[in-house]
Amino acid sequence: MKKYAIIVAGGTGKRMGESLPKQFLKLGGTPILIHTLQAFEAADPEIELILTLPQEEIQFWDELNIWHQNYLEHKVVAGGETRFHSVKNALEHVGEGLVAVHDGVRPFVSAKIINQSFEQAKVNKAVVTAVFMKDSVRQLDEKGNSKNIDRNSLRMIQTPQTFDVDLLKSAYNADYKSSFTDDASVVEAYGYNITLIDGEYQNIKITTPEDLIIAEALLKAK
Amino acid sequence: MKKYAIIVAGGTGKRMGESLPKQFLKLGGTPILIHTLQAFEAADPEIELILTLPQEEIQFWDELNIWHQNYLEHKVVAGGETRFHSVKNALEHVGEGLVAVHDGVRPFVSAKIINQSFEQAKVNKAVVTAVFMKDSVRQLDEKGNSKNIDRNSLRMIQTPQTFDVDLLKSAYNADYKSSFTDDASVVEAYGYNITLIDGEYQNIKITTPEDLIIAEALLKAK
Repeated sequence: MKKYAIIVAGGTGKRMGESLPKQFLKLGGTPILIHTLQAFEAADPEIELILTLPQEEIQFWDELNIWHQNYLEHKVVAGGETRFHSVKNALEHVGEGLVAVHDGVRPFVSAKIINQSFEQAKVNKAVVTAVFMKDSVRQLDEKGNSKNIDRNSLRMIQTPQTFDVDLLKSAYNADYKSSFTDDASVVEAYGYNITLIDGEYQNIKITTPEDLIIAEALLKAK
Repeated sequence: MKKYAIIVAGGTGKRMGESLPKQFLKLGGTPILIHTLQAFEAADPEIELILTLPQEEIQFWDELNIWHQNYLEHKVVAGGETRFHSVKNALEHVGEGLVAVHDGVRPFVSAKIINQSFEQAKVNKAVVTAVFMKDSVRQLDEKGNSKNIDRNSLRMIQTPQTFDVDLLKSAYNADYKSSFTDDASVVEAYGYNITLIDGEYQNIKITTPEDLIIAEALLKAK
């Protein structure tokens, strides 16, 4: 069964306090996004890689690849206004089979997790990696009052989120809603049940300067 | 107004895959728990420190302090069966004023956060540090099905959790419930409204071997 991975990189770098979009920041001397592509290549070289980037960053990315001698084959697709629109654009370049959607700024995804995601998606069609909450969690109401939620009932959702391509394309026919924070939420709105599988804590999303410090430490420990 | 801090250290090390309880693991050569005590000392040397430890670890802790030449004044109280029972025991050694309860394995709490917590607790009596969720979150029902939750309504709860002593003692008169995962949940059950203030992402809870790698990186970056 054909396998695709859509790597979503829409960061503008504003949250990092850096001028360079976060997916291009260096981790061990190499842009984060190259690490992420390599993680999928390492898991299974047969996976067809599709990268979504803001239109204005595509040329820089091309040059960055030449500079870093990254010859890893991948298709680049211009992203849209939101993550939803970017994935929707990328899906136009995906044929039948299975597709993993993954955050460009999660370079520490393991081969094990990627391959398990595809295996499970053959059976369950909508498979999302998740980890338990370590901290207590409170939920705020409209008045700003908070109440304790049973953290055992909660899961922090990561990527990859891996789907049967037909299912994901059908779900993405929906009109955009602000509640679509990831692909699982799009597929859930379409009415399909999400299967959760264990993710890994090390599969962090790099969004703050502190995360980059942590990422360098994780890279050294690999 | 008199200030106290109860530092809760009940770890047995099982989760870390180490024989040493996690609060004693070395961070930059010094036990995590000594870093944590020093953080409170650095924030305000007037804070009276009370440490809860499992009874069987107290002697080792005493020897560890001599070994590391840690002369920081603090009272050691034997912990109970759960975190709830440990805090309840420690509260017997707390007089009138304000008390911060803090996890022993959160050594990166900043002086700023500690002092803001006490300042706010003078006004609001029940003040808890919290950070926004970066990941999407799903909630499981009894059948194991999951649904997306609006992550903007959620906060990950950290420590310190800082209270008016009278209020916290009254709340801790309750019988233990398994839903008491932190002090905020005890005070909430007593019927008092919790005030959330901004925490810091770097104030991590060290509970896994990966966390220790991250902690070493954060320590180096300080």
